[in-house]
Amino acid sequence: MTLKLYVDRLSQSCREVIIFCKLNGIEFEEVYIRLSKRQQLSAEYREINPIQQIPAIMDGRFKLSESHAILRYLACAFPRIADHWYPADLYKRAKVESVLDWHRTTFPRGPGSYVFYSVLAPSVGLPLNSKAAARTEKNLIAALATIESVWLQEKGRFLLGSNQPSIADLSLACEIMQLEALDEKDRERILGPFKRVLKWLDDTKNVMEPHFEEVHLTLYKVKEKLQKQRITQSGRKPVLHSKM
Amino acid sequence: MTLKLYVDRLSQSCREVIIFCKLNGIEFEEVYIRLSKRQQLSAEYREINPIQQIPAIMDGRFKLSESHAILRYLACAFPRIADHWYPADLYKRAKVESVLDWHRTTFPRGPGSYVFYSVLAPSVGLPLNSKAAARTEKNLIAALATIESVWLQEKGRFLLGSNQPSIADLSLACEIMQLEALDEKDRERILGPFKRVLKWLDDTKNVMEPHFEEVHLTLYKVKEKLQKQRITQSGRKPVLHSKM
Repeated sequence: MTLKLYVDRLSQSCREVIIFCKLNGIEFEEVYIRLSKRQQLSAEYREINPIQQIPAIMDGRFKLSESHAILRYLACAFPRIADHWYPADLYKRAKVESVLDWHRTTFPRGPGSYVFYSVLAPSVGLPLNSKAAARTEKNLIAALATIESVWLQEKGRFLLGSNQPSIADLSLACEIMQLEALDEKDRERILGPFKRVLKWLDDTKNVMEPHFEEVHLTLYKVKEKLQKQRITQSGRKPVLHSKM
Repeated sequence: MTLKLYVDRLSQSCREVIIFCKLNGIEFEEVYIRLSKRQQLSAEYREINPIQQIPAIMDGRFKLSESHAILRYLACAFPRIADHWYPADLYKRAKVESVLDWHRTTFPRGPGSYVFYSVLAPSVGLPLNSKAAARTEKNLIAALATIESVWLQEKGRFLLGSNQPSIADLSLACEIMQLEALDEKDRERILGPFKRVLKWLDDTKNVMEPHFEEVHLTLYKVKEKLQKQRITQSGRKPVLHSKM
């Protein structure tokens, strides 16, 4: 039976699971759980994941939620997944776990929240919240500084000084990509100072093409829509180019 | 070389690591990193964990941070750790991972924050914050409801319907124990409605004695101190009992 992924590509946690499957040739059926229509709260989806969050998977009769748990499971359950994704070596794996857990402990108070409160909330039917955005910005900057100075090292293109990406790279890169939804100036102000993070993000994208970009198209469309709204709201008309 | 734990028993994440070692006969040296004196920010500790958080461990020359990553590592690195802590079975382990990750995704916005903002902040030199406490209370209640109705099931005394505890039980129980620091009425108001959670907490304590209680003594002392402060602040004198 084909693996089912219950996802919305608007969510960074969903994108990481989809990209992992595509990169590793894992066949799947993508079941669209529309966050904007709060479909994750439906009685039908409750049968799949009683916590009513996405992503979730169903592999045969086995149901699982939480994106990091899903990535670990997929890396172990499917054959011929390259070791660098989730190393079998005790010490290497422990370090990958350390980044994954740091990501989960740190980001609910940081980047995810900042982008959500700043621009994305209306996409899922909630109001923007500039106070909450201001509150979380400091944590976002601190988190980026930790990636820059602790998790990224001089040697190796990827996290923990590795030459190949792990599931921690994939997951964290999808998280940082949420910043794409911000106004360009705001994104540059926040991400600009972190040169290593920017290079790592580029390297991660490149090594995961074409799937990384393709799965992020939904986010790029949201970005475009938000940009148009900003132009309209600011009273300026978008520059029109001649068709000639 | 003895395993070194860099910890402060005031922190729930530190307590879970200490209790796991004690329960499993893992010898360790406890290095006290005093949160109240912000010793986690010292240059010396930075060498152990550049993220400057506790807990961290040093096993020989191997350094590791993040309590869940540490528990996974200890369960795999030391001999004769019973399988129920971190099951080798793919599906059982994936479910334990799911709870561990849910804990990390959910609690930075919930219980930990509520207790911290309500009563504990002054213990580490920060002011109380009733607004932040009010904001996080809703998430705390929702998290307890999820434990009650999703992670705890009719069968089995422990999470996921198991008859024996996993590292997810240990970690989550230490988290919920933070509520001990609250005023008794407030704790009862919040925890009281969740009968399964209360029973599970009792079962977890019992199966982990005497270590669970012993490692929580620091928290009980804080609770006692806070109670005395509340009595003083409310202008009522504590009831004195005759020595006769």
